[in-house]
Amino acid sequence: MPYQVIIPAAGQGKRMGAGKNKLLLTLEGVPILIHTLRVFEADAECSGIILAINPSDEQEFKSLLKEYGIHKVSSLVTGGKERQDSVYNGLRAVHSIDGVVLVHDAARPFIRLETIRNLVEAASKDGGAIVAVPVKDTIKKADDGRVAETVERSSLWSVQTPQAFRASVLLEAHNKAMREQFIGTDESSLVERIPHHVSIIEGDYDNIKLTTPEDLYFAEAILRKRKESGV
Amino acid sequence: MPYQVIIPAAGQGKRMGAGKNKLLLTLEGVPILIHTLRVFEADAECSGIILAINPSDEQEFKSLLKEYGIHKVSSLVTGGKERQDSVYNGLRAVHSIDGVVLVHDAARPFIRLETIRNLVEAASKDGGAIVAVPVKDTIKKADDGRVAETVERSSLWSVQTPQAFRASVLLEAHNKAMREQFIGTDESSLVERIPHHVSIIEGDYDNIKLTTPEDLYFAEAILRKRKESGV
Repeated sequence: MPYQVIIPAAGQGKRMGAGKNKLLLTLEGVPILIHTLRVFEADAECSGIILAINPSDEQEFKSLLKEYGIHKVSSLVTGGKERQDSVYNGLRAVHSIDGVVLVHDAARPFIRLETIRNLVEAASKDGGAIVAVPVKDTIKKADDGRVAETVERSSLWSVQTPQAFRASVLLEAHNKAMREQFIGTDESSLVERIPHHVSIIEGDYDNIKLTTPEDLYFAEAILRKRKESGV
Repeated sequence: MPYQVIIPAAGQGKRMGAGKNKLLLTLEGVPILIHTLRVFEADAECSGIILAINPSDEQEFKSLLKEYGIHKVSSLVTGGKERQDSVYNGLRAVHSIDGVVLVHDAARPFIRLETIRNLVEAASKDGGAIVAVPVKDTIKKADDGRVAETVERSSLWSVQTPQAFRASVLLEAHNKAMREQFIGTDESSLVERIPHHVSIIEGDYDNIKLTTPEDLYFAEAILRKRKESGV
């Protein structure tokens, strides 16, 4: 089932402490951004990538796309102040409001095609779907430095991306959020407020977001594991 | 401040799929269990390690302790059916009911001495304290395969070990849990039910529990990073 994907890539990545856009840091010699784009470049169902960028990165990103043979980037749009603004700008570049649009973190290079396939199918059927994994750790709610409550974890999911929606649903969610000046931690939280059904698709723990310097070590470990296991 | 530590090491580690006790799997040639024990062996404040084991592992564990020069294991107690039973058996081997006792996962080898120091101090003052890190991911509550709610994450903490208590407090918590047939996901959840104050000490994200085969790759990455950064 065809889809387009919006990838917000305008973040500063301050937590990475790299002094530059963290997406340009390399894993095995290849920028993180390119690792992520390659997943969608290789997926026959992906009909276009909409990249939301910082204008100051435009020349560098364009030459990277050329250097690594990424041909599916159909639009480069300007990233906004918040991630949510970037996604909105990307949404306006989607070519069919009836189709499925994914939003995926540029710093999550380990998403699997099979998960994308399940996600797109669910979003097409239900209007909205997200990738998540069951919470493994014990979670506590804190109050003033002490434990207030142990949260019952059996129904808790840790949310990743991609998140997928019928484009019309995501647009409605963004319009409502803008009217009400709501800023969410993810796209799904906007869609939930419509309210609209969002399905959960189980992903895997490898699909980490590279946020801190430690994560680069984890990323190398995942690449090594995948090479050794061949999956 | 002196403390004893109970380490439940009787788990089957089925999720690791190793076909043997996962604690015997090696990292850089050294069993995971030994990596963890070395932290406490090296801490001058640790006055004794109480290891709860499966009787079938006794000979192998004893020879490992000898081989790697771990001298602080003051008691080997029999692990119970549940982790909670193992901790209770360990608790009966503690030498002072007024002192601070830690409970630490045998499969968490990356705990830092500085964190232990802060934890013991808090437990001595407040009676109970746990190590945790702020939840980074968006968390959703699910209902029948769909999103029911985005959980406000600013007050959520992901719990690790060690957890530290005045031994008398932890014993009271276990006695109450046994009377009421309550099984918790961690020691703190038993203490919270007394109810008794439990403080939160911020740890770091490196202090992972080695549960699945993927985690061994993460563990190697952490070891490599620590060597390179020298911390």
